[in-house]
Amino acid sequence: MNDVLKKPRKVYVTRTIEFNAAHRLFNPELSDEENRACYGKCSNAHGHGHNYELEITVSGVVDPQTGFLLDLKELKEILEKQIMDRFDHKNLNLDVAELENAIPSTEVLTITIWDILTAALQERYTNKKITLHEVNIHETRKNSVRYLGE
Amino acid sequence: MNDVLKKPRKVYVTRTIEFNAAHRLFNPELSDEENRACYGKCSNAHGHGHNYELEITVSGVVDPQTGFLLDLKELKEILEKQIMDRFDHKNLNLDVAELENAIPSTEVLTITIWDILTAALQERYTNKKITLHEVNIHETRKNSVRYLGE
Amino acid sequence: MNDVLKKPRKVYVTRTIEFNAAHRLFNPELSDEENRACYGKCSNAHGHGHNYELEITVSGVVDPQTGFLLDLKELKEILEKQIMDRFDHKNLNLDVAELENAIPSTEVLTITIWDILTAALQERYTNKKITLHEVNIHETRKNSVRYLGE
Amino acid sequence: MNDVLKKPRKVYVTRTIEFNAAHRLFNPELSDEENRACYGKCSNAHGHGHNYELEITVSGVVDPQTGFLLDLKELKEILEKQIMDRFDHKNLNLDVAELENAIPSTEVLTITIWDILTAALQERYTNKKITLHEVNIHETRKNSVRYLGE
Amino acid sequence: MNDVLKKPRKVYVTRTIEFNAAHRLFNPELSDEENRACYGKCSNAHGHGHNYELEITVSGVVDPQTGFLLDLKELKEILEKQIMDRFDHKNLNLDVAELENAIPSTEVLTITIWDILTAALQERYTNKKITLHEVNIHETRKNSVRYLGE
Amino acid sequence: MNDVLKKPRKVYVTRTIEFNAAHRLFNPELSDEENRACYGKCSNAHGHGHNYELEITVSGVVDPQTGFLLDLKELKEILEKQIMDRFDHKNLNLDVAELENAIPSTEVLTITIWDILTAALQERYTNKKITLHEVNIHETRKNSVRYLGE
Repeated sequence: MNDVLKKPRKVYVTRTIEFNAAHRLFNPELSDEENRACYGKCSNAHGHGHNYELEITVSGVVDPQTGFLLDLKELKEILEKQIMDRFDHKNLNLDVAELENAIPSTEVLTITIWDILTAALQERYTNKKITLHEVNIHETRKNSVRYLGE
Repeated sequence: MNDVLKKPRKVYVTRTIEFNAAHRLFNPELSDEENRACYGKCSNAHGHGHNYELEITVSGVVDPQTGFLLDLKELKEILEKQIMDRFDHKNLNLDVAELENAIPSTEVLTITIWDILTAALQERYTNKKITLHEVNIHETRKNSVRYLGE
Repeated sequence: MNDVLKKPRKVYVTRTIEFNAAHRLFNPELSDEENRACYGKCSNAHGHGHNYELEITVSGVVDPQTGFLLDLKELKEILEKQIMDRFDHKNLNLDVAELENAIPSTEVLTITIWDILTAALQERYTNKKITLHEVNIHETRKNSVRYLGE
Repeated sequence: MNDVLKKPRKVYVTRTIEFNAAHRLFNPELSDEENRACYGKCSNAHGHGHNYELEITVSGVVDPQTGFLLDLKELKEILEKQIMDRFDHKNLNLDVAELENAIPSTEVLTITIWDILTAALQERYTNKKITLHEVNIHETRKNSVRYLGE
Repeated sequence: MNDVLKKPRKVYVTRTIEFNAAHRLFNPELSDEENRACYGKCSNAHGHGHNYELEITVSGVVDPQTGFLLDLKELKEILEKQIMDRFDHKNLNLDVAELENAIPSTEVLTITIWDILTAALQERYTNKKITLHEVNIHETRKNSVRYLGE
Repeated sequence: MNDVLKKPRKVYVTRTIEFNAAHRLFNPELSDEENRACYGKCSNAHGHGHNYELEITVSGVVDPQTGFLLDLKELKEILEKQIMDRFDHKNLNLDVAELENAIPSTEVLTITIWDILTAALQERYTNKKITLHEVNIHETRKNSVRYLGE
């Protein structure tokens, strides 16, 4: 092995995934009129939808044995099970247990996915120090929301 | 004026727009089981959604007076009225008259938009020779459908 | 409401906008020769131009009432008035009061827009805690400059 | 050599380049008021600018000796000399001989570049059959113009 | 069913895939010196590599029963078996039977993939009229080659 | 000079470059079987390759004399000499001295480039305070690794 990993090196590894979902911005505690005032066309009764693009970033020290922070196949499996199976080709208001009674804004979606992934990564990487660093969701080319656990 | 437009020059002008909509692939003439067999997760009862990216191409001879094929502000207004108002933040199965009883696949959506725009352009450009050349819809980064009126 | 917003959650919301402007890199305190030595082809007397792509990021705690950090329509209006009206389809050396006597490099443009937006956001969000986090300007696909108020 | 090039195969090779230029839409044969009516903010007296992205496509039969349609280094040199040197970091209204007295719309720019490249390619490839197939210019992410010599 | 598919409508469906491969431009019939003169740094003895992005376009009449030209899952399987299994994470000079004794330029790769897919699609769609329309390979952001069977 | 640079302003300037290289994930201290178990298809004996896209970010206080953090032509030359000449059109396992005996994962590549650039920038900018802030490498559209010197 050459010298580059002889001292600990902390890296940030980002995996980009995409799911397609319907949603409707709607607060059940408000009247229809209040919802329209707050959410405009985003509260359309039958919903609309997006290609949600997610950048999931984990951080930690590179393993000198493998040259990896973590095996990307493992991260891919976690994201497949925790994110794709839960959100892809779903209606965020009606099909996702974690969003029940929630307003499925990009902000709420980003935080919810942070909570889901934090739990899943802690369960999988009990010994290794793999930390969720950031969840960044692009709802459209123009709008995105990042959450870093603050 | 310099010489470049002294002979007729046919150009293709493309305008890119994006709308966000929910849909569900579902043929009402088939059973639920047949729909699942045909459309898989795309037939999810509560729908899913996309950021649809459209490339609308019109063609014709450049006007030597203006240096334009057509005034892009006019094209923008037509697309706003005919496409954005009709499809943006809508449920393609339930909110769009032109898609009633249709299976809102990308193929059908592309052809439907071709038909709508052909009529609208003919109405607007009665004297000028502005022709719809192509409608290209990207449903995701990976899948797109083009229709050229054939 | 579900539990996800029961504790305060700080998010970063990014809005991407684009304006098209001409500029010329030129320091009036230097000679023409010195300007050419410093700025090369970027000091061309009649100017050149760019599609400037801006990523404006604001941060703060999500409002449990709306599920939003802030109403994006409001942010859009601020950016329209403060940025688009000031810079879009303008000559940065000659048409923008805030850049008078400035060298309109991407660095200076980024800082100037930070100063403009900080003032505008403070005026609009007196009660709410919405903070400007970052201004990131892409001058081309290859070059970008970020400013975070440091 | 394997069999794939034993029969003639016609391919289309596209090279993408980008230049940064200022321009102003303005017809000197019209009054200021008429120019404003026609071109709006695009006729701003001091100009604005763009990152012009060009896709230049040439076509012909693959050379079985090299596996290439043409040496891309040669095409790169032609584009450097004919396009980059002429248009990059320039003011299209004031610095380019071929656009003198022209309205530098994307349409006119696309056709002008077609004419320049047709001549340059004919001069260079007298024996080989390399044909200019298409010039496609993206003025912004949303607007582009193609010319195919029709 | 609504009227949109009552007359035959020909569409072009494009699927985008990406594979990662090493290659070296080298003609075994030429000397080392001639290879260097022809291919420059692309003939580096140990090879280099690319993320090849492919746009595969098939055409035909939309099926009124399904609203599809073809089931994209089927096309995905064909591309997985014929393209990904053959080319992904491979050395194009050493690992691919179809490229034996070939110069693995983008031109040759594009034509080879056209030949492979034409055969595979004819075998699969004996009754339906699904035709391969175009193979377009982007070797880098700047260079791409299209083949349409001419 | 106007007031914007009268107080020190720290900016982050990012330059994006791309090189094309072959590599093979392989740890010479492990058996072939262990390598396959760890790296799967990425350990293919003849290698595969990528278009590596790098975002190099430097930071420091803007120079009021020039309006620049640093002359981008200088940064471009450093990147040409230190990165492009070393890695472009090379085999990362066999052609790069700095990667000898290393596993050329994206993590190791990112850290190696950080070390190379830190030394080069310190040598060049002895007086000015230009600091390397981040090296971010995109191996594919889906995977990227950032290193910030931690």
